[in-house]
Amino acid sequence: MSIQERVLTGDRITGKLHLGHYVGSLQNRLRLQEQYETFILLADVQALTTHFDKPKVISDNLRNVALDYLSVELDPNKSTIYIQSMIPEIAELTVYFSMFVTVNSLRHNPTIKTEAMERGYTDMYYGFLGYPVSQAADMAICKATLIPVGEDQIPHIEHARKIVRRFNDLYAPVLVEPKALVGQRLEGLDGNSKMSKSMGNAIFLDSSPEEVQQQMKRAKTDPGRVHKHDPGNPDICTIYAYHEAFRPDECSEIREGCKRGTIGCAACKQQVTAAIHELLEPIREKRSYYEQRPDVINEILAEGTKRTQKIAKSTMDEVREAMGINYLG
Amino acid sequence: MSIQERVLTGDRITGKLHLGHYVGSLQNRLRLQEQYETFILLADVQALTTHFDKPKVISDNLRNVALDYLSVELDPNKSTIYIQSMIPEIAELTVYFSMFVTVNSLRHNPTIKTEAMERGYTDMYYGFLGYPVSQAADMAICKATLIPVGEDQIPHIEHARKIVRRFNDLYAPVLVEPKALVGQRLEGLDGNSKMSKSMGNAIFLDSSPEEVQQQMKRAKTDPGRVHKHDPGNPDICTIYAYHEAFRPDECSEIREGCKRGTIGCAACKQQVTAAIHELLEPIREKRSYYEQRPDVINEILAEGTKRTQKIAKSTMDEVREAMGINYLG
Repeated sequence: MSIQERVLTGDRITGKLHLGHYVGSLQNRLRLQEQYETFILLADVQALTTHFDKPKVISDNLRNVALDYLSVELDPNKSTIYIQSMIPEIAELTVYFSMFVTVNSLRHNPTIKTEAMERGYTDMYYGFLGYPVSQAADMAICKATLIPVGEDQIPHIEHARKIVRRFNDLYAPVLVEPKALVGQRLEGLDGNSKMSKSMGNAIFLDSSPEEVQQQMKRAKTDPGRVHKHDPGNPDICTIYAYHEAFRPDECSEIREGCKRGTIGCAACKQQVTAAIHELLEPIREKRSYYEQRPDVINEILAEGTKRTQKIAKSTMDEVREAMGINYLG
Repeated sequence: MSIQERVLTGDRITGKLHLGHYVGSLQNRLRLQEQYETFILLADVQALTTHFDKPKVISDNLRNVALDYLSVELDPNKSTIYIQSMIPEIAELTVYFSMFVTVNSLRHNPTIKTEAMERGYTDMYYGFLGYPVSQAADMAICKATLIPVGEDQIPHIEHARKIVRRFNDLYAPVLVEPKALVGQRLEGLDGNSKMSKSMGNAIFLDSSPEEVQQQMKRAKTDPGRVHKHDPGNPDICTIYAYHEAFRPDECSEIREGCKRGTIGCAACKQQVTAAIHELLEPIREKRSYYEQRPDVINEILAEGTKRTQKIAKSTMDEVREAMGINYLG
């Protein structure tokens, strides 16, 4: 175990987690928690940037996401799981950062630009525009060194690094510039490059076997492959992408079989569906264990939050000292 | 004493206070503290919107401004004096407000627009743009009902009222819409409509008698009045404006004398200078008393900050309850 790296990862609380999260981040976190000190942020405050008028979605799903974490065996003894809104120091540091971050640099942040375009914003909420500032504060407050992200989030890490560097230059070098660790991505059932709740192309981690069976029927295959013995193109087949994700050891065999037309789509789909069942079964069991023990979840969240609060307070002490705004000693 | 109103007032910590502050706000606060529960904010965080790269100006002047308050007899038993950076709840509420305040509404805020123009900003710092949001949080966090302001600050109060209203509509009516109480303004020694440190036309409250004497020499009179017996125009004379501010009872007499040419500029200036000496003398004494007792000042600030923290915490409890983001009970 290295003591040099501190990992920060997390999720905006806008719904339950799905297989896209599993492949894109949870799997990665399971590896990371064995190697490094790991912090996992339940980002309820940042969820408000798009859900300020639906706070119930956030409060309803906070425990769901915590359940998702515990069900996939993120281990609270290795991963510190904490609640963003219970660390006021993040808001404080966000405010201090906001003094020297320009509006134009935020407007030109590619992630903000893309998201604003996707959502059709002509105007923007001030908090939404400031997302990169608050993310920088998330990372800086717990002195994270390594941030696992999707490719679309790289500009946020770059922005965070710039903000931290500017702070260190202006005041004193007390904050840490984090590095990005880019993860893979799982495509949606409809063949869209990203599995996403809002696109309705996701299989949730808490799905029943019947739901999985039902949803996998929709999964896109190569549309040019009409008959079982037609040669297929695995590169445009969602099912093949799922083989890569969930049956990596067998996928070169599937690839060949598809291209040669020796394995049919139905059988191919059935194999990967079985793999997903196999993956989700123990997750479902673990979930049901924790569902019956809400006090244990509360305790885990309280404990992780307390641990993070301690670090956050100590970072803010250093920040105030660096800025010279600690007056009463 | 009314228990219905709670006054919030304060100053950005960008320098010592001067006679413009005395006439425009301190005098008013002395009256208000006799009638209402009064809170006075040492706005060190908001000072960073323009001074993020000069934090020493802020830390150097925080105690100076506190000294200014105590010297003019703002009474810590009646006025709760507190330090903004020590109330993290203000940053928290700022972040929550920022979720539903649009960038355009901030850009169109007349005070922001004017200040940005005056400072020649082509771009803007994110925190500077968000000034109205953080002011709304200042007011809301201590449930202030009455905000004494200069005329140029009225748009901020209007904006704050809108933000509070929106919060109450979105979640639950737990916050209070504040009202503005517009104060007067003192012109600068150079005849500019506003006395201001940055314009170099100010007499500071801690000036020595010699400094006052020296500075009053610069004070503008009616430039059309060349000879002692020329009739003058008091409406374009800074000295006359000071008579109105510092010798209100005698000023109609001065007005007549000036218009008729029966009182010369030198004598007129001398009278008002004497009145300023008389005003500043006890302030100087009181200042020197407190200067020798830094521990007393620390205690006053710690006590006022503690009192405000209690209120801020209780407001944030209500805010979280209203938003439904209190998870662990």
